[in-house]
Order: sequence, then C-alpha cells, then structure tokens
Amino acid sequence: MATTLGKTNSGAAFGRSIPRVEAQAKVTGKAEYVHNLRLPGMLYGKVHRSTVAHGRIRGIDVSAAKALPGVYAVYTAADIIKLIPEPYYGPAFHDQPILAVDKVHHVGEPVALVLAADPHVAEAAAQLIDVDYEELPAVFDEVEAMTSKAIVHEVLKPAGTFPDLKHLKGKRDTNIALDFHLRRGDAQKAFAEADHVFEHTFRTQQVLHVPLEPFVTVADPTPNQLVIHTASQSPSFVRIEIARLLGWAENKVRVKVPYLGGGFGAKLYIKTEALTAAAALLAGRPVKISLTMEEQFYQITKHAATLRIKSGVTNEGKVTARECEVWWNGGAYADIGPRVTQKSGFTAPGPYDIDHVSIDSYALYTNLPAAGALRGFGIPQLVWAYESHTDMIAKALKMDPLAIRRKNILREGRPQATGTLMRDAGIEKVLERLAQRMDWEKAFDKGGGAIRRGRGIAIGFKASISPTTSVAIVNVSADGSCMVYCSTVDMGQGSDTAMAQFAAEALGIPVESVTVVHPDTDVTPYDMATLGSRSTYHMGHAVKLAAEDARDKLMQLAKDVGLSAETTPIPDIFRKKYGMQAGNVVGVGSYIPSYTSPDAQGQTDNATPFWMIGATGAEVEVDTETGEFKITRLVNLVDVGRPVNPAIVETQISGATMMQLGFTLFERMDFDAGQCTNASLADYKIPGIRDVPLVMENEAVDMVQQSGPFGAKGVGESGTFGVSPAIASAIDDAVGVRLTSLPLTAEAVYRGLRAQAGKPLDE
Amino acid sequence: MATTLGKTNSGAAFGRSIPRVEAQAKVTGKAEYVHNLRLPGMLYGKVHRSTVAHGRIRGIDVSAAKALPGVYAVYTAADIIKLIPEPYYGPAFHDQPILAVDKVHHVGEPVALVLAADPHVAEAAAQLIDVDYEELPAVFDEVEAMTSKAIVHEVLKPAGTFPDLKHLKGKRDTNIALDFHLRRGDAQKAFAEADHVFEHTFRTQQVLHVPLEPFVTVADPTPNQLVIHTASQSPSFVRIEIARLLGWAENKVRVKVPYLGGGFGAKLYIKTEALTAAAALLAGRPVKISLTMEEQFYQITKHAATLRIKSGVTNEGKVTARECEVWWNGGAYADIGPRVTQKSGFTAPGPYDIDHVSIDSYALYTNLPAAGALRGFGIPQLVWAYESHTDMIAKALKMDPLAIRRKNILREGRPQATGTLMRDAGIEKVLERLAQRMDWEKAFDKGGGAIRRGRGIAIGFKASISPTTSVAIVNVSADGSCMVYCSTVDMGQGSDTAMAQFAAEALGIPVESVTVVHPDTDVTPYDMATLGSRSTYHMGHAVKLAAEDARDKLMQLAKDVGLSAETTPIPDIFRKKYGMQAGNVVGVGSYIPSYTSPDAQGQTDNATPFWMIGATGAEVEVDTETGEFKITRLVNLVDVGRPVNPAIVETQISGATMMQLGFTLFERMDFDAGQCTNASLADYKIPGIRDVPLVMENEAVDMVQQSGPFGAKGVGESGTFGVSPAIASAIDDAVGVRLTSLPLTAEAVYRGLRAQAGKPLDE
Repeated sequence: MATTLGKTNSGAAFGRSIPRVEAQAKVTGKAEYVHNLRLPGMLYGKVHRSTVAHGRIRGIDVSAAKALPGVYAVYTAADIIKLIPEPYYGPAFHDQPILAVDKVHHVGEPVALVLAADPHVAEAAAQLIDVDYEELPAVFDEVEAMTSKAIVHEVLKPAGTFPDLKHLKGKRDTNIALDFHLRRGDAQKAFAEADHVFEHTFRTQQVLHVPLEPFVTVADPTPNQLVIHTASQSPSFVRIEIARLLGWAENKVRVKVPYLGGGFGAKLYIKTEALTAAAALLAGRPVKISLTMEEQFYQITKHAATLRIKSGVTNEGKVTARECEVWWNGGAYADIGPRVTQKSGFTAPGPYDIDHVSIDSYALYTNLPAAGALRGFGIPQLVWAYESHTDMIAKALKMDPLAIRRKNILREGRPQATGTLMRDAGIEKVLERLAQRMDWEKAFDKGGGAIRRGRGIAIGFKASISPTTSVAIVNVSADGSCMVYCSTVDMGQGSDTAMAQFAAEALGIPVESVTVVHPDTDVTPYDMATLGSRSTYHMGHAVKLAAEDARDKLMQLAKDVGLSAETTPIPDIFRKKYGMQAGNVVGVGSYIPSYTSPDAQGQTDNATPFWMIGATGAEVEVDTETGEFKITRLVNLVDVGRPVNPAIVETQISGATMMQLGFTLFERMDFDAGQCTNASLADYKIPGIRDVPLVMENEAVDMVQQSGPFGAKGVGESGTFGVSPAIASAIDDAVGVRLTSLPLTAEAVYRGLRAQAGKPLDE
Repeated sequence: MATTLGKTNSGAAFGRSIPRVEAQAKVTGKAEYVHNLRLPGMLYGKVHRSTVAHGRIRGIDVSAAKALPGVYAVYTAADIIKLIPEPYYGPAFHDQPILAVDKVHHVGEPVALVLAADPHVAEAAAQLIDVDYEELPAVFDEVEAMTSKAIVHEVLKPAGTFPDLKHLKGKRDTNIALDFHLRRGDAQKAFAEADHVFEHTFRTQQVLHVPLEPFVTVADPTPNQLVIHTASQSPSFVRIEIARLLGWAENKVRVKVPYLGGGFGAKLYIKTEALTAAAALLAGRPVKISLTMEEQFYQITKHAATLRIKSGVTNEGKVTARECEVWWNGGAYADIGPRVTQKSGFTAPGPYDIDHVSIDSYALYTNLPAAGALRGFGIPQLVWAYESHTDMIAKALKMDPLAIRRKNILREGRPQATGTLMRDAGIEKVLERLAQRMDWEKAFDKGGGAIRRGRGIAIGFKASISPTTSVAIVNVSADGSCMVYCSTVDMGQGSDTAMAQFAAEALGIPVESVTVVHPDTDVTPYDMATLGSRSTYHMGHAVKLAAEDARDKLMQLAKDVGLSAETTPIPDIFRKKYGMQAGNVVGVGSYIPSYTSPDAQGQTDNATPFWMIGATGAEVEVDTETGEFKITRLVNLVDVGRPVNPAIVETQISGATMMQLGFTLFERMDFDAGQCTNASLADYKIPGIRDVPLVMENEAVDMVQQSGPFGAKGVGESGTFGVSPAIASAIDDAVGVRLTSLPLTAEAVYRGLRAQAGKPLDE
C-alpha cells in the first residue's frame, strides 16, 4: 500500500455504502462472542431467584445445594458483603444489590449463586436452595405507586452522578425515583381560553429487548487485574462501577467486549457483571454467568407507562396549550429509568409549536423486574401517546391528520418546550416527504365489505443524551494503514464500519486502510456508552478529532523532513524520517458537546446537541368480522443528517421499525402478582419474517446536521418513533376503532367493533 | 484514590527500588506465556531440518509423513510459495527462506513442516520425511569465508533498510555481508614511528543465548486479521515483516507478546513467526510451533569471531596507533549480524584515546546456523580482545594494568574513533571506582605452592543502536489511575516496572497508580525493538513525553473548568468537567534521537545518543597442578546514568555478568562438518548456582546521562563487557598463562602451564 494523504472531507470514505467490516467474520461464523469463551479452571454460575415480589428474607438454606456433588461454592449476600461491604450498584441510584440483602423487591431477583465446573450441576443445585420469605405488600402499577402504602425501597440512595437526583438522598416513604417538571407559559390560563380542550390517557406495556444473545459475563481474577469479558454496551461504565464497588483503581479492572448479539439497551450499565466479578474474586477462579432466555425476562425490561395528555385547541386546530403527565413503571431498581424520565420528559409535548406547556414526568419504583433503557429511551411510548392524541383531536375537529400537523409543527428556529431553538431538525421536511410518499393528498381507496382500509401518519422527535463524553485514538502506521481505538460497541448497528469511515474521511486515506479495535478498557479510551443513538455524533466527533490530530502530526512530520504530505506517499514520509518502515503517528480526540442544564422550570437554551426525527406512515386492511388486520404498507422516514453509510442507515431504520412493530402488535410481559407468566419466546411473540409489512419503505431524508461530524447525526432509534400511532390511527381510519393501549391486537379491534355496533362480544 | 497531580521530576517514583510490577504474577505461577496458549482447533507444527550443511535439494519425499494417521498437512517451500511468492525474510537481507527453497545452507535448517492436532504425531511424521541432497562445498570458518570458493549465497539481497548495505545488492561470489571500515589519522605512519608495535589475534566461540523459554509462536488466522502470539522481543518488526511477506497492510497483522522467559537477543526480528503464520494461513487453522531446547541450537546463535589487534605504543605506554581487523561468523543467514558488525565496529579500538585508528570489520556468511544479536551486540567479544591486548602490552612494557589504562583512557570531551566527542561517559569514573573497590594499589597476596592467586581488570564501552524510534501513549483515567501503552517487551529485565516509574515521575502521580500494558501491535504503538539496552533511554523518553503531554492536557482541562491541577485531586477535575467519573486524558510521545550517519571513513560527530560503560575486576585462584581455577571475587561496575530502579539495575548487572561468565568459562557450540555435536543442555553447560563467584559485587557508579530521561541510560548489557578479559588477565597474573581463545578452560590453563614448564601434557 502506498497511500498518499488525500484530501480530508472529500467524500471518498464518508457517505458510501461500503460493506460492513465485520461481515466476513459474522457470515463465516468466526466472530467471537463471550458465550464462546472458556477459560482454564472456569466455573459456571447459576442464580437462585426470588419467588416473591416483595419480601423480607428470614433465612436461606443452602445446605442441600452445597451437598450436591460437584458444587464448588454457594454464595449469598453474606458472602458478597465480606468482599464488598456496600454491594449496591446502579447508574442513577445505588439501589441494586449484587445478591438480595435482607429483602427481595421483585420476582426473579438474584438471591443466591451456585458455582460448579459443570453448569448442569450448578443449575440443579440452584434449585435446591430454600429461602424463607416474610411477604410484604407489593405495588405493580405505576400510577398506584405514586400513592401506595407499599414502599419498594425504605430509603433512596442517589448515586451522586446526576444533579437532579441529589435532593432525593435519604428520602423515605416514596416510590418516586425522579419527578421531572417543565413549565412554559401558562397552560392553565390557556386551557381556560381555548376553544376546545381534549384529554386522553394512553397505556404502554412492559416489554423485553430480546437480544438473540442473552446476557453473559466471564470474570477472570488475574494476578494484576480483574478481567471482565462481558456482552456490554458500556465497557467504560462497567470498569468504573466495578472498581468503585471493590474500592479499586480503574486500571485494576479490565473490561473486554467482543461482538454483541444485539443490545437495544438491555446490556447497559451493570447487569450480571458485579455478581460474576464478586463470585470470581471469592472463588479465586474464572466464573461465567450466562443467562437463559427466561432469565432475561427478570433482568431488564422496558418501562410500562401511563400517559395523560391534555390539549387546548383553537377552532382552527392550533394547539395553544398542552399538559402531559407521564408515569413510568421503573420496576424494582432505578437503573437508568430516571434519565429516561428526564430525557424523554422535555419532549413530551411532541414536535409541535405550543406556547403553553406543563409537563410532569415521574419515574416510579414498583415490585416488577427493573426497567431501563430501550431503543428510543422512552420516546416511542411518548410518540404513541401524543400522536394518537393528535389524530383524536383532528378527528374531533374534522381536520385532516396532515393538515393539523402542518399547522402545529415545530419549525426551524422556533423554541421547543425547553426554550431551546430548533436547529437542523428536519421535522417539516420529514413530514412533507412522508405526505409525498404516502400520496396523502390523493384519493385513498378505503375498501368495502368486510375488509376496510385505512391509513395513518405519525411523527416524533428525540433529543440526544447530553452532555456525554467520547474519547478516541487514531494510530497511523508507517505503511499508511491505520488503527482506530474507541470504546463504541458494535452490537450489530455497524459502528465499526462507521468509525472506519470517519477516520478515513478525516485523514484522507482509503477506508480499507482502517481497522477499528474492539472495546477493551485496557486498550480503547473512555466512552460514556453505546446508547441513545449517540455514537455517530459523539464518537464520530472524537474519531474525527483524533484523525485530524494524526493528520496534523503527519503533515508536520513530512515538513520536518522536507517533504509535502499532500504529494508524498505516507510510507515514504516515515521512511525519510526513520530510515525504514518504522514509527507511528498517534492522534487523540476527546469530545463533549456543550450543554446548559435546565432551570427549575425545565428551561434551557441548549437542551441537546442535535435532534432526531422519525416519522411513519401506515396503511392497513382490517377485517370487520374478526378484528384481524394486516399492515399493507409501512413508510419510514428519518432525518439522519448526512448518512455515514446509506446501506447501514437503511438497515438501522428498518431494524428499528421492525422492533417497534413487535411492541406495537404482539409483545407484552404478562404478570400475575408480580410473576411474569409468559417468560419464554414460546409465549412471548417477537416479529418473524411473516410479520414484515407487505410493503416497507425506508428513507433517510436529505438533511445536514451542521454541528455533526461531516454533517451526520444518530439514527439507531428514529425508526421506532412513529410506528405504533401510525398503525393505531390507520385502524381508526379504517373502522373507527381507536385503541389507546399497546399492543394493538385483533381482539382489541374486535371488541371495539362490537362496542361500536352496540353488540355483545359473543354474538 | 484521590491523587492530586504532584510535582513532576520530584524523585517520588524515579530512582526508587519498588518491587517489580509482575512479581506477584510470576511467583504465583499465574503469568501467562505463549507456551501456555491453546486455541480451539489449534494444530502443532514440527519441523523437518536439514542434515547437511550446504546442499541442493534434489527431492523431498513427504509421502510417508502424509500417510501417518493424524497428520493434517505437510508443507514444503512449494506450498509456501503459493501463498508468499518471495518467501525470504530478514532485517538486513532478505536471505532467509521460510522453508528451504532449492538449497539448504546449514545443518538444522527448516526444510518441511508437519501439522497435526497431536504434537507427537507431528514429530513422528517429521522424522519420516526423506530429502535427497546434492551436497555442495561448505565453509565454516569466518576467516576462510573471506576467500573461500564455497559461496553460501549466490546473490546478495539487502532488505533496503540499511544504507550501508545497499551497494551489496545483486553482488555475487562473495560471503561478505558487510564490510565496515573506519580510518582516523594515519595508522600506518604511526606504526612506523612507534617505539613498540604489538599484534595479537583472539578467538571467540559460537554460543547460544539459552533463554529458559524456547522460542514459540502461535498464529491464528481470524477473519479480519492474522493474529500472531509470539515470544518476540520485536513485535513491531514482526508485524511489519509478516505484512510485507504477505503483501498486506500492517493493520491486518496483529502481534501479541505476553511475558517472555528470557530473550537476550535470541527472540529478535523473525524467528519462527513467518513459518507459523504461513502454515496457519495455508491450513486455515491456528498453528503453534514451539521449539525444543535442541532446536534452539539451530535457530540463532552468537557470532564466533576472530579479532586481530595491532597497537603502536610509546616507551611510556601511550598507545598512538591501533589497527583492528574483525571477522564475524554470521552463519548462513545475516539476521542482524551486519548491524553487529557496524555498531560494534566503530568501538573496536576500545575506550582509549588513540589518534591513529584503522578498523576493518566483516560480517561473513558461513554454513553454520545463523548468528544474530546477543546481549552486548558484539561488544563482549571486542572487549575480550582489546582488553586482553591491553594487558599483554602492559606486561611487555612491565607496566601496571591500571596505569596503562589511566594513561590511555578516553576522557570526557575527547573524540572517540568516529570523531564523536565523549559526553556523559563515565569511563574514567568507572575505572577509578574499580581500582578503589579492588584495592588495586594495595598489596595483593599472590599465594604460593600449588595455589596461585592473580587479579585482572578490564573496561569496555558500547554505543546505543541509533537512530531508532519509540512511541508511547499514556492514558489517565478519571480516578487518576493511569495506563501506559508501549511495545517494550518485559523479558525479565523489569521494563514494565521502569516504564511505570517514568510515567509516574513525569506525571507526578504515585507509581502504584500506573499499569503498563503488554505489547500488542493492535494496542501498543510502534517500538523498534527491545534490544541493545535501548528501552530505558528511547522508550523512557517516549513514555516521559507522553506523560508530559497528558499532564499538560490535564492542566489545561483543570484550567478550562476553573480549577488548579496542582491543588485539586484528579478525580475532581474530571468530575467538574464531565459531571461524573468519566473521560480520559490521553498523551502521546514519540522519540528518536538525533544522529549523523558516518562518512566513508566512518567519521561522524554524532555516533550515538549515549555511551554504556562496564568494567570488571576479577581475582582468581589457579591450581598449578591441574590448571583448575576458581573466581574468588568478581567486581562489576557500570555507568547507568541515574538508575531508574536501583534494585532492578543491580540484577541487570549481576545477570549480565553471570551470562558472560558462562561464555567465559564453559559455553561453546562444537561443530563437526557443520553439525552441532553438543546441542543439548546436558552437553552444553550453562552457569549454575555453584558457578557463582565466591564474592560478587555489583555497583552502578554515580553518574547522570544529561540527555537521558531523568538522567537514565541503558544497563542491560554493560555487565557483560569486562568479564572475560578480567578473568583471563587474572589467570595470567596468577600463573603467567595467557589464553587468547574463549572459553577459558582448566584444560587450556593446564596446557599453558605444561608448555610454560616445557613439559609434555601427560607427564
């Protein structure tokens, strides 16, 4: 290879649909996952889990488990505490114990751990553990949790990481893990003055992320470091949090992340890492804990939510006031739920230009499995509510759904509910493109007879998680090839490919010359986490800065030896300097966007570095006799700024859409007294190939994020936003049945049709 | 940990005898070596080796080997060439084939490779291979090689890396792989004018490095990269050279080096890596080739040499002219021999201030196993010759050995034979300190009867290998702990500990906060190699620069958020900037010393960035009846600049001394028609605990290397310099027998005693 440093930002690498860098490894089955990892002397850990939703532990009898031949050790909280006196972790609250201490807070909570060389022995022994519980009153509903006498945690322990949680420290007798409030203008006055006031309440269900690779961690206590191989989206956080628990320095903990079989938010912060690490240190042996698919149902879920939205509207359909009240069912441990509450909170009024806004958003502890981040970070639930609400207003006012949106849309330069002015937010462009692709203003055949046709549109938006930090290193070798070091986790979204493109574009070298190194905290520098569609923007910036730094140093190197870097092949520059193929040029980039914390009213002039916009149009056919419906067309439009890799962007949009389709049509965790009754993929249906809409179109609209690296912004979640309300509105458009709870089932439509006809269900 | 950035260069970390960072891992047996590595699907490779010293391959019959059950594959050069059309490697010449192509050039040369899942099967199959040779005339002696009709290589192929080899490209009918010439003043005229002219010829033997871990490589053909786990001292070179052979980019080859069980120069450049890599790629499976101790005898040796030294001397003992002619027996492949020839060549006159100098130094191909770098890089051989010569002159002139050295020593600021002025070279200081510790000017009891006592001193010096490059990265975590990334290989010399001390000292943080990452070309940046005592100086500089860069960035980070880095704990600075424990500060350091290439006369004003000085004083007791002798006292003094870690420096001096003691007293590879006849540790004795001198004293004299990082310089080799001649001179002092060939055996002394007495050996 005799590459010359080409032009930077020439479009040679960025914006091209190059194949994914990991494609070959994956299709040949050679890509390595933590599940494949076996270390000499490794023990397998199996968890004994709580059978009650809320209870005090009177005693744990591990004698039968210990007596089972082949069992190496059985640990309970009493053992953990010898190693870690304060064994509570969490990104927002230090509320989650490594193993249950004194109390259990949900069914499925880890109470004891069995280690054995044979995982089947460990599994059998875990079932022999007998725990005596004193059951306590439990609360499962998020709205009830506001006022319930059943208190999940006796005292709140914020982690100290987020300023808006600090006032909760030491608070008792409450299930509220965060209350977010935003006030803009005077909503109550505006309601009084409005021509119409509409108020609707919506429900979303608790669902699962269902990465096809269940969570797995191997902890290896080497002499100088504790090495943790884990299927995590946040290696830097795992390192810092495990080091904190142990009272160690960061560099005594090494976290390595190979390929991930999906993440979607299920693998963020600490999941099984603390338990695996503690067990490995107690045992003095490597330990692997790999969850079964069933166990994933107890590990982390998406928040169920109740959302009440009230709007004041003029006769012309202009929304003048909006009140939103949202209760997020956070389950037994806060995880990152308070951030979901706050980050989604301030966009609750939707992409609309409303002068008077009042938002109250609550993260609530309940006795269900903990909820955390899931693709969209609360936005799909919000959009489901506010876009259903928009259509219900339009219908009441006999307005066209497109027209009411055109009237109210938040246009470029206008203040969002926080007061932050909209910049580079393609709300209008995406909406208009959706109208165009849906032929919205042309006649639509609504069918007849038993089969009725309908259509719906919905648009949502999201802020980036801010302010968060990414650091990258770019190392150019003497032959002009290049290594990129960053802790962004490629979990299928194609970030390795994107980062290679960023580096190549910024350096001005072929993308084929770039290798991206897998996250390993001993190797790749700090990154906040791979979540919230932040990597393209944040790590993209960091990699670009690092590559630019390397380019500057390479230019200087050339200058030092009397050469021009623009015309001399890179190997020749190194050769002139070092006399042979030798040396490296190393560039460093560190990026954090600017940000202004909101004031007590939730107001800030800088709420986010960029906005993500996603819209969906749906066409459905509904069978009026059975309530069954099928999606005949789904159009998904997203503002991604400039797409880094159009082919990958397309798969991000379609993947997000399909995932949201599962939540829209089938997925729901069912509970009976806190016990999940469908904790298996036999009972919990996720979308299959037959569930793909007959026609599905995905498009990145033509936009540029001026502040983004080469004009790019995040895309991982935007495809989820509009799916649920577009389909609900299409059903309503077809048969006049408005569903306000997810999932949207044929049964619910049938019930609606029967009620509409004034007929009993069984006639 | 709440470390505040302390003062840099405060002496808090540098110069302290902290325990080695790897001590716990090693004493608990948990340190990992390549020998321990087993990968899924891994095959073992066993080599079939040439039985003739020089021959044309008429045919290779692998049928019996292939037919052995369990054999996966048998490869010869014909297979290698399918993958690598030009399968020749080497740092100085591209002369060494991965497997013998058409010809063999020494006994033990790899001719074929067998792969099997069971290494015993591979071994058995390797013995079934039958090669038909047409034997060719061979040459084994280095002086004969100058004029022999037996030509080892038909045509010379310089690698293009070293300018002084370029004129050899395409040269035929020669065994000279480098001829180095230095002329200063007019030696011939000075000889004519001298009061006395002395000329002596010395011999040194071919020896082995004997690392206790024989060479081993595992090559793993992963989908995106070829990963090479190897016990190498030069991971960066392995990456570049393997990439070159394959025609790949550097970043498609990853070289990982865990702990090394010793190196001493045996594990430099390419050893078994190319063969292992090629086999793994051909097989599509991981391949391990681990040499037996016997096979090490065929892999790499230290040069045998013949050294002729001639001096013109005044009646007062001032040396006015010196002529040196040195023939280095490089064996069948050049490896780094030409560098040994050149780098040692210009110090051949010794640490003496001589106006008229003529040096001719030759690297010669012969039909012995290839010779390469070995601790001291040719200097112990030179010192052996020139210091024996010094004492022989002193004896002839009836001068005291200390007095003749005092008269001729090269003092600070004076020009060395290249013309380069001596700076920070403790030649005088080391010599005077040696005289003091040996009580040289006091009476010495020479014994009586059968046991006679004698003493000797010797002093030598060495230049650093120049100009060579080291790059380092220092990454400070948000809690103030720190990772150092460098490709220096800790092979027992304590470099990990030293680099931690450099980083801590430069940053101003506790050394306990620093972790040094193992070499891995995907992780740690370029380093020329771990050789020639270069790491402390070169990588010490790079790490110091990287730490200073990180410190500057941390100071700036503090300033940006209105804090003082001197008074604020590091975690608080990060927390203020990022709102939580987040982020990294990454510093980069790249170092290459300045250097001026010598002119045609070998003259340069800048031959080396620093000088290493080592001296030894020996006291011996010789049994005049048997020739047996024992070393009763060995005093080793070294100029190390400021010692990084005095305890480790002491072990470097004692280790080097003991190694040279082996070469001085026992070690010699014996050959019969090119076949090594003592290729086992049963027949080839290395020093054991009973061979340690009764009294052994090691001291780093009080010096500062002004240009060194914190005043330090290299120390790994200096302990070897004076050992052989000091002992030889002590024997001569005791019994008047002057030995001029190594090793110094009781038999040789006995022969000398009998000759001295004019008696036959068997009387």
